Amino acid sequence: MYSFTCDYSEGAHPNILKKLQERNLMQHPGYGEDEVTNEAIELIRQRIGNPKASIFFVIGGTQANMAVISALLRTPEAVICVDGGHIWAHETGAIEATGHRVITVSGVQGKLTPAGIQKALDDYFMRPHMVKPAMVYVSNATEVGTIYKKAELQAISEFCRAHKLLLYLDGARLGSALTSDENDLTLKDLTELTDVFYIGGTKNGALFGEAIVFNDPALYPDFDYVRKERGALLAKGWLLGVQFGELFKDDLYFKIARQANILAKKLSAALKEAGFEFLADSPTNQVFPIVSKEEMAALAKKYVFEEWQPIDEHHSAIRFVTSWATDEAHVDELIKDCIKLKNNN
Amino acid sequence: MYSFTCDYSEGAHPNILKKLQERNLMQHPGYGEDEVTNEAIELIRQRIGNPKASIFFVIGGTQANMAVISALLRTPEAVICVDGGHIWAHETGAIEATGHRVITVSGVQGKLTPAGIQKALDDYFMRPHMVKPAMVYVSNATEVGTIYKKAELQAISEFCRAHKLLLYLDGARLGSALTSDENDLTLKDLTELTDVFYIGGTKNGALFGEAIVFNDPALYPDFDYVRKERGALLAKGWLLGVQFGELFKDDLYFKIARQANILAKKLSAALKEAGFEFLADSPTNQVFPIVSKEEMAALAKKYVFEEWQPIDEHHSAIRFVTSWATDEAHVDELIKDCIKLKNNN
Amino acid sequence: MYSFTCDYSEGAHPNILKKLQERNLMQHPGYGEDEVTNEAIELIRQRIGNPKASIFFVIGGTQANMAVISALLRTPEAVICVDGGHIWAHETGAIEATGHRVITVSGVQGKLTPAGIQKALDDYFMRPHMVKPAMVYVSNATEVGTIYKKAELQAISEFCRAHKLLLYLDGARLGSALTSDENDLTLKDLTELTDVFYIGGTKNGALFGEAIVFNDPALYPDFDYVRKERGALLAKGWLLGVQFGELFKDDLYFKIARQANILAKKLSAALKEAGFEFLADSPTNQVFPIVSKEEMAALAKKYVFEEWQPIDEHHSAIRFVTSWATDEAHVDELIKDCIKLKNNN
Amino acid sequence: MYSFTCDYSEGAHPNILKKLQERNLMQHPGYGEDEVTNEAIELIRQRIGNPKASIFFVIGGTQANMAVISALLRTPEAVICVDGGHIWAHETGAIEATGHRVITVSGVQGKLTPAGIQKALDDYFMRPHMVKPAMVYVSNATEVGTIYKKAELQAISEFCRAHKLLLYLDGARLGSALTSDENDLTLKDLTELTDVFYIGGTKNGALFGEAIVFNDPALYPDFDYVRKERGALLAKGWLLGVQFGELFKDDLYFKIARQANILAKKLSAALKEAGFEFLADSPTNQVFPIVSKEEMAALAKKYVFEEWQPIDEHHSAIRFVTSWATDEAHVDELIKDCIKLKNNN
Repeated sequence: MYSFTCDYSEGAHPNILKKLQERNLMQHPGYGEDEVTNEAIELIRQRIGNPKASIFFVIGGTQANMAVISALLRTPEAVICVDGGHIWAHETGAIEATGHRVITVSGVQGKLTPAGIQKALDDYFMRPHMVKPAMVYVSNATEVGTIYKKAELQAISEFCRAHKLLLYLDGARLGSALTSDENDLTLKDLTELTDVFYIGGTKNGALFGEAIVFNDPALYPDFDYVRKERGALLAKGWLLGVQFGELFKDDLYFKIARQANILAKKLSAALKEAGFEFLADSPTNQVFPIVSKEEMAALAKKYVFEEWQPIDEHHSAIRFVTSWATDEAHVDELIKDCIKLKNNN
Repeated sequence: MYSFTCDYSEGAHPNILKKLQERNLMQHPGYGEDEVTNEAIELIRQRIGNPKASIFFVIGGTQANMAVISALLRTPEAVICVDGGHIWAHETGAIEATGHRVITVSGVQGKLTPAGIQKALDDYFMRPHMVKPAMVYVSNATEVGTIYKKAELQAISEFCRAHKLLLYLDGARLGSALTSDENDLTLKDLTELTDVFYIGGTKNGALFGEAIVFNDPALYPDFDYVRKERGALLAKGWLLGVQFGELFKDDLYFKIARQANILAKKLSAALKEAGFEFLADSPTNQVFPIVSKEEMAALAKKYVFEEWQPIDEHHSAIRFVTSWATDEAHVDELIKDCIKLKNNN
Repeated sequence: MYSFTCDYSEGAHPNILKKLQERNLMQHPGYGEDEVTNEAIELIRQRIGNPKASIFFVIGGTQANMAVISALLRTPEAVICVDGGHIWAHETGAIEATGHRVITVSGVQGKLTPAGIQKALDDYFMRPHMVKPAMVYVSNATEVGTIYKKAELQAISEFCRAHKLLLYLDGARLGSALTSDENDLTLKDLTELTDVFYIGGTKNGALFGEAIVFNDPALYPDFDYVRKERGALLAKGWLLGVQFGELFKDDLYFKIARQANILAKKLSAALKEAGFEFLADSPTNQVFPIVSKEEMAALAKKYVFEEWQPIDEHHSAIRFVTSWATDEAHVDELIKDCIKLKNNN
Repeated sequence: MYSFTCDYSEGAHPNILKKLQERNLMQHPGYGEDEVTNEAIELIRQRIGNPKASIFFVIGGTQANMAVISALLRTPEAVICVDGGHIWAHETGAIEATGHRVITVSGVQGKLTPAGIQKALDDYFMRPHMVKPAMVYVSNATEVGTIYKKAELQAISEFCRAHKLLLYLDGARLGSALTSDENDLTLKDLTELTDVFYIGGTKNGALFGEAIVFNDPALYPDFDYVRKERGALLAKGWLLGVQFGELFKDDLYFKIARQANILAKKLSAALKEAGFEFLADSPTNQVFPIVSKEEMAALAKKYVFEEWQPIDEHHSAIRFVTSWATDEAHVDELIKDCIKLKNNN
């Protein structure tokens, strides 16, 4: 059985494990107050082109989201996200548990739009009987593998600034987004267009870890407290420094993300040619073919993957995810198996 | 200008003010630990036919909702309500501020159904990545003035028990619901079918106040703590005792609610005859005629009311609310004015 | 049995009930958006000498405290108060329920001092492993009836500004404090020395109600949301307008507070002369004589009062509270009874 | 410079890194739903002698504490701990951020006692104006390195059961406690005497990770939701399985903990003989000698350690911590240096 379930089935990129091994018995100050961490922060600052950014490592995406959102919102304020956004759909109410409503609006291909945000503002007009929308949350890549084009993110950014909404970008799959063939955004753009974003390590080569970037350190200088308060401060913080240090050395982070995209594209192109339709047109490392129940059952004998969404009585969209660790041979085999299924019908 | 905006424009029923005046300079123990309060609780217990019920007075509906819901839910649990339900639409995220998600589902005529609740359970299937639905919240009358028939509430109650969901009924307008011509529910039914409900005073003759009824005192014996924790314990608690004591003496609560319904029915019947259509078919004290923008403007010169919902470019549903204090002469005049408008078109 | 238990045993000053009666059947816009409320706000602004102050009425002290504190603190921030402060000792963790720690430090005669606040800052030095002290909470009068002299409050205010701590004053018994013989503070001083304070109505002539004053409206312009979110927005908000309107007409608020102080002083002077000692030297409407167990038992046959604090095996401090409604004849009788008890020993 | 600052300066025990390396490129189901994790859970169940225990891995101690405590307490409930307890002193209000008060009471040698817990219950008598104590939190070893003897923990356990208080034991340094020369407690005892406890990995050989043990799975069957809600569910959960699997193979966890204790004892015995006094008589891996300012300055040139607590103008208690990774040669050198300092005086 080979798994295309997600991009976090394997451990870390070998460079990371090697470095970890090297430093394992060295002594480090606790809580990320060490040189390895500082160097990793410096590398990221350089790479995003913002030497003054405040950067904080945390362990996972839910932590990043709940720490950032609870830090920046005041008690009656809410965050807007797209239908199916991660903070709404897959984080067990972590945001509400910090006291804030998540407002969802419809998107276009999984992406939020200024019109969608405006809809939320319109719906929440009835001051003071409704929460106050104060932040916009977007993911890039989105939950369905689509990406924000520069013009789209600019439009959202301008809208947010005009309406005094903070803009926060969840980059759990940022590597995949920024190395997509269709991408025209840079890290530099992100640091200019958003208030806060995070660079996801868990789904792109790290054992775990996300790098939260406050583009303007004055936005919330007390975030170190919040990271600890929310249980997101790692005692052996240097482990995060090691990982991001390796990922941002020689652009490894982007090289391996691109590799995952290439395999995903190989897969989706072959499936398209074989006649499969898709739930969404994803240019990143997630592929959502629509298959019949019989095809799904047949594939499930050799592969692990998620049934993503029922389409009709006889069909479902399924999800194949590639990662930096995906073996091309298995992709090739999956392609062959899919083509065979199609031809047998 | 006469206001049909809401059922809380005036103060209290004269009986209440009279009693308040009588007791004003007497001394009472604080925090509702007084005889007046005990007597009011006893009256309610008798009237609902549940001598063992635990009854707690609080000042308003948002307090009631946030205290009950935060008391009964554990941290990852959520409450299900209908689209437009009060806890979702008009309480500034008070439930989320206590750490819990509100899940909304579509209703039928403003009412929740077992199918709707099942939809919520289906949507939230992905344990542990989603919150756990643990309570169902309904309002009777609903936000659009409709009421639950006995069979409907029974079906919901059975569904909840079968699925281990608590059932909580918001009775901000319970008087109006139970005295509607179409009603077939009794207070006794409520105490049997729900886990907790509240009897609304603010919108039916009291200066303020809601009576929360825990049908089984063993459900949550520590609610007194929560009432205080949430700022809902009145220092001069006897004021609530006085008010509910008067409302539940000689069935005043229901007599005055019925009076509001009678006037609302007079109004809606006349409007229907005059050719107006309605947003919802409300058998209680709220009437939602659909009017043209011109009609709305004309009416707004003499009456205060809410524009409830735009219908199309030229029409809106507006809301007229009657109460125990509504002057029939003004209802008659409003009817005349509406007919005149219709005839002028 | 006559009660000296507290200053909220009776209802409202007769002027208030009269006005309430007059307006009872008039129609008012909901939620305090009415003229009566606006006028009351204007009266308070004039009386405190701060025409730009933002003023919000809420129903009770716990509501005021939890709404103000949760509005002004961000997630990892804490509020400092004196040992025995109301938010620590008698509000069922309402502040913690909004996510914030209450830090207590020793006081002097129930009063916080700059040294005490500095102690809290010293204790909480270990960033980011400890919460961030961000607000100071004081009560005037204090829980033991003492009051802040102008120089004391100035010192605290200066300390707070120097250390970027917000200063919030709980005025549940502000009338009693400001009309004490020993007082040298004015409302104008409060508006200059604090960031936020509240003027307590519940314990000085109102049925219920506290007026929260934001001295600088820019400090937190969204407080209206928080008031609703915390269940502290009264539907018939004009009831609060009526009460504060009467209390601030012709200085009624201070006249009746002074009357309570006069009776308390009469009582304490007589008890002192009779040889009783006191727990604290309170110049306000609370008197804390130390009595033997036998004296306590004898008094409990005719009077209701609180045993405040055990002193030794044979003695306790008890508390007598006077109010605007206290009957002087009963004070005289209490004095006689106390003297008799002393003489019998 | 050699560091005796803490027991989490280095990475993981080599066995763990080896295993991690072996499995690094294998595919694992996400979120701890993998065989490695199941096996580790089974090993722990066997070792503690409770085959039905529910065991959940989380990343760190603050996560463990906030998830367990917020899962088990209802909204107005509080947790009792000793002065200086970790949840009070070093977790940035993480417990309060979930809505609950932490109540502190004095201990004996850093340990909670039934008398201390009784004191908390006495202090919080004034229902419903005070929070409801509902849980007791102890750490073993304590913050000052002392340990609970079996009779002490039994007494606390009996007290808790008699007073319906849950008992939760923080085992961040449980390995050190259970392998202390003075220890007479077993894991089996813990599973019988407490309701929940956790076995700390971070401070004893793991890169990170704590194993939360619910002794009775019926106590709170929904903890999986809370772990996710609080950001404590690791995507690559098998990393925790690998670590605890190694630690509980051939009793490695206890072997390395004992080794740390042996070095600590060597150090403390030598310092005692050299004439140093101690803040606390710790039989575990923390040593708290009292040194003069000059001695502290001299040591700080070669060693990293914490100044723990000022004793008087001229002396402080400092803390040396040993771990599974401490190099005995450095301990010997530290001993020599300390003796030299003492002799020079």
